[in-house]
Amino acid sequence: MALSKKPVNGMKDILPREMEIRDYVTNVIKTTYREFGFTPIETPCMENIANLSNKQGGENEKLIFKVLKRGEKLHLDTAKEENDVVDFGMRYDLTVPLCRFYSNNANDLPSPFKALQIGNVWRADRPQRGRYRQFTQCDIDILGEPSNMAEIELILATTTTLGRLGFSGFEIRINERRILKAMASYSGFEEKDYDSIFITLDKMDKIGIEGVSTELLENGYAKESVDKYLGLFDALADKKNVAEGVGFLQETLGGYLDEEISGNLREIAQTVEAAKAADFALVFDPTLVRGMSYYTGTIFEIAIPEFGGSCGGGGRYDEMIGKFTGQNVPACGFSIGFERIILLLMEQGFEIPERPKKVAYLVEKKYPAEKLTEVLKQAKEARENGQQVQVVRMNKNKKFQKEQLQKEGYEEFVEFFNRD
Amino acid sequence: MALSKKPVNGMKDILPREMEIRDYVTNVIKTTYREFGFTPIETPCMENIANLSNKQGGENEKLIFKVLKRGEKLHLDTAKEENDVVDFGMRYDLTVPLCRFYSNNANDLPSPFKALQIGNVWRADRPQRGRYRQFTQCDIDILGEPSNMAEIELILATTTTLGRLGFSGFEIRINERRILKAMASYSGFEEKDYDSIFITLDKMDKIGIEGVSTELLENGYAKESVDKYLGLFDALADKKNVAEGVGFLQETLGGYLDEEISGNLREIAQTVEAAKAADFALVFDPTLVRGMSYYTGTIFEIAIPEFGGSCGGGGRYDEMIGKFTGQNVPACGFSIGFERIILLLMEQGFEIPERPKKVAYLVEKKYPAEKLTEVLKQAKEARENGQQVQVVRMNKNKKFQKEQLQKEGYEEFVEFFNRD
Repeated sequence: MALSKKPVNGMKDILPREMEIRDYVTNVIKTTYREFGFTPIETPCMENIANLSNKQGGENEKLIFKVLKRGEKLHLDTAKEENDVVDFGMRYDLTVPLCRFYSNNANDLPSPFKALQIGNVWRADRPQRGRYRQFTQCDIDILGEPSNMAEIELILATTTTLGRLGFSGFEIRINERRILKAMASYSGFEEKDYDSIFITLDKMDKIGIEGVSTELLENGYAKESVDKYLGLFDALADKKNVAEGVGFLQETLGGYLDEEISGNLREIAQTVEAAKAADFALVFDPTLVRGMSYYTGTIFEIAIPEFGGSCGGGGRYDEMIGKFTGQNVPACGFSIGFERIILLLMEQGFEIPERPKKVAYLVEKKYPAEKLTEVLKQAKEARENGQQVQVVRMNKNKKFQKEQLQKEGYEEFVEFFNRD
Repeated sequence: MALSKKPVNGMKDILPREMEIRDYVTNVIKTTYREFGFTPIETPCMENIANLSNKQGGENEKLIFKVLKRGEKLHLDTAKEENDVVDFGMRYDLTVPLCRFYSNNANDLPSPFKALQIGNVWRADRPQRGRYRQFTQCDIDILGEPSNMAEIELILATTTTLGRLGFSGFEIRINERRILKAMASYSGFEEKDYDSIFITLDKMDKIGIEGVSTELLENGYAKESVDKYLGLFDALADKKNVAEGVGFLQETLGGYLDEEISGNLREIAQTVEAAKAADFALVFDPTLVRGMSYYTGTIFEIAIPEFGGSCGGGGRYDEMIGKFTGQNVPACGFSIGFERIILLLMEQGFEIPERPKKVAYLVEKKYPAEKLTEVLKQAKEARENGQQVQVVRMNKNKKFQKEQLQKEGYEEFVEFFNRD
């Protein structure tokens, strides 16, 4: 029986042109993050299924590719539910594995520890255009740093990387989970309702302030609270400058907002603005929620104008490592939207800078072995001089062969005939 | 409940020191193979389970991590066997996915196509020291090249890479599946017994010629054939030079061995010797079998003296792509033993050449935000000058902090105090 030529449903083969850009981007990312003292690490692509099902992953936990038990451990006949037949699962992000890694290896690592991870993750989403069920994530995290030096270094490293990839005029939107809560509390909402309110707030960019108001009222919240709440956002609409926005909130919310929280955010903004290397704006976005329930403090997101929507983000999650060790460790991370950056560069027809020259040597079929040595020596010399040289047999349809090689970036062709 | 800190059974976390070496080796491999015109590609880590269970993978097919069906497709209650509950499997090598990739994308690729793949594979082996159930493979393959130019380029590219990684004085052992068969046929064995005979022959380096003789006789083969067969190996023991060994066989086997086959092998040896860039010996090894049943012609293996046993290998497999497309395509590949190379370099205390200087800036805890900007600007400048600079808060136990940073390769420390 003929085998299936297609990749599994929802995943894709990566062809040479895309692969070249992925390799280039990976290289820029690794070089830049290393300069900032981030250290590459790797964890297995599979985790124990219990680690992936601990409610930290939110909706992603419903999308786990699960791995069947093997050998004697598998009892299909008596199995009642999925968890009877699986032991591992494919990771759906790099944050859960990082926390496990740190818990397992903290004694061998410096503190604070600055980690860089680039790796595949898997989510059994419904397949759709441009979204795949296997994709690459690229995260930097600082573990063991309670102060805002973590946020500052993460933002500087990420924006420097984006700048080196040719992006400019983008935004880093910043907010604080504790500011979100203070605004809700000040408006008279109860703590038990915060998550539901933030889910609605998160839709602000799609449905506008009117839409948010309607949905909150439909969900049964008091008109007085909803009006007071949305009044804050109204007043903040022209206060994108962090110092200004946060200053306004500190004044308005008074005792609802701890001064340490607003001061912290102002310090981050001030320092990043003064020390940044790329062309971007840091803006205060009080509607920024970030879905993951594990965030405990600062949250941020990258917005690139050419690409509607978020192109990466992150925040502080001081309570996750405690799930593994029983003892919390301050933690803050920034994930760059690797796949979206690749997509953007592909669409823009990105050309890799300073690429070595690609030359193809086409050798006639009947070229004798003893003369081939000379061709190979010539190729060796050209390679030592920095060229990429492919030595191949000349096809009957030489024109087509050259066209295909040109698609792969070959600019020069040298032909070898026996009669020469 | 506290979560599990350990990686899943049989897989491992990769710590900074090893990761640095892995990144370095990957970089040398990619750079060198690209110079030889190999093009990086990637395929998903999962394949349809039918593609992985087509008998091409030999013993590896028993070691597949299988992925549970999801949602409505899963019927645990009526499931009778494993294949009822799984649809995908984790790839156990990179060759099956490459053949599927080529079948799927041949129209968009040059012919011949020279592919480079570096990726993880998974095998549910019994966990044991130094062998992991997730590991990295690194393959180059040339698809669509029937002539020995494929073998020559593969061997030159692989040995150049090993040379650049600092290896010298190693061996590339070479043989031919059709020579193996000719020797067996000449000795009077029947074709149906070849696989069993080759399994015994493959043990030559462990049990010696006496051991092979004993096992073949125990397996019921005629003494006359066994003696005639082993006589050949005896005579070949001092003929490691390819031309000499193959020449002897051509003379001895006569019509059993097609002259085209021995000529082909001699051409490979002659050309590689003349054009090679690394210090190694190409030797004829008539006992080399290579386990995979898909090989159809030349086979080869890397032997590094510091490392008993094979450190990579490959060969020609002209009939595998036909399993996908119904039409065979000449194919030849060489897999470098990535994990073994890393192990060897780790054991040798390998130091990465020309590494940027790593400097840590330790900033006192009470250092004020407004002064921090100056520290960050200084770091920015140092990074632009090629240093890797980590900016961190100074811990109470500064001595221990520095020791941990030294383990990560930090050579210089700059301290910032508020009083300065």
